[in-house]
Amino acid sequence: MVSPKYHIFVCTSCRINGGQKGFCYSKEAVSIIQRFMEEIDDRDLSSEVMVTNTGCFGICDKGPIVVIYPEGTWYGNVTPEDVERIVEEHIEGGNIVKDLTI
Amino acid sequence: MVSPKYHIFVCTSCRINGGQKGFCYSKEAVSIIQRFMEEIDDRDLSSEVMVTNTGCFGICDKGPIVVIYPEGTWYGNVTPEDVERIVEEHIEGGNIVKDLTI
Repeated sequence: MVSPKYHIFVCTSCRINGGQKGFCYSKEAVSIIQRFMEEIDDRDLSSEVMVTNTGCFGICDKGPIVVIYPEGTWYGNVTPEDVERIVEEHIEGGNIVKDLTI
Repeated sequence: MVSPKYHIFVCTSCRINGGQKGFCYSKEAVSIIQRFMEEIDDRDLSSEVMVTNTGCFGICDKGPIVVIYPEGTWYGNVTPEDVERIVEEHIEGGNIVKDLTI
């Protein structure tokens, strides 16, 4: 299995034993991941970008959290409106969106 | 936020809109992530290793799936018994466990 060029992880506050409850989830994390999926699809990036929902990263006070590997960029306080910028500047442009990093 | 040296992602089949249902979950994924957490804790690796549960990676026929970044190693058909080996050989020893990769 070859890793994607960018793997975007979005906390949707999934609990290990089922259920979904937490800060990121309460702050529109589901909309955020849906927007990422739409943007990746609209821009024909799905061959090189993967989007995955996750459980808690343990830094809820900075949520919603988005982490992008392999570079290990941590974005916090992300809103659905920030998604387009992250895709355009980081994923397409290769430049980390510094003012959203934590 | 500085990324951990190793970030271990374990699919526990979390769905984006809540609930947990799927192949990895049905094949002991919860035991797998719990074993990872125990091993990391027992070996005092928690300052450099993070473990996170995820939703589906889309390759369910090869599940349970474990992905380790930043190197982007994909392990498949993982069992709870494989966890100790992955921690010992990959996380502590720095060598990918080739026969478990997909």
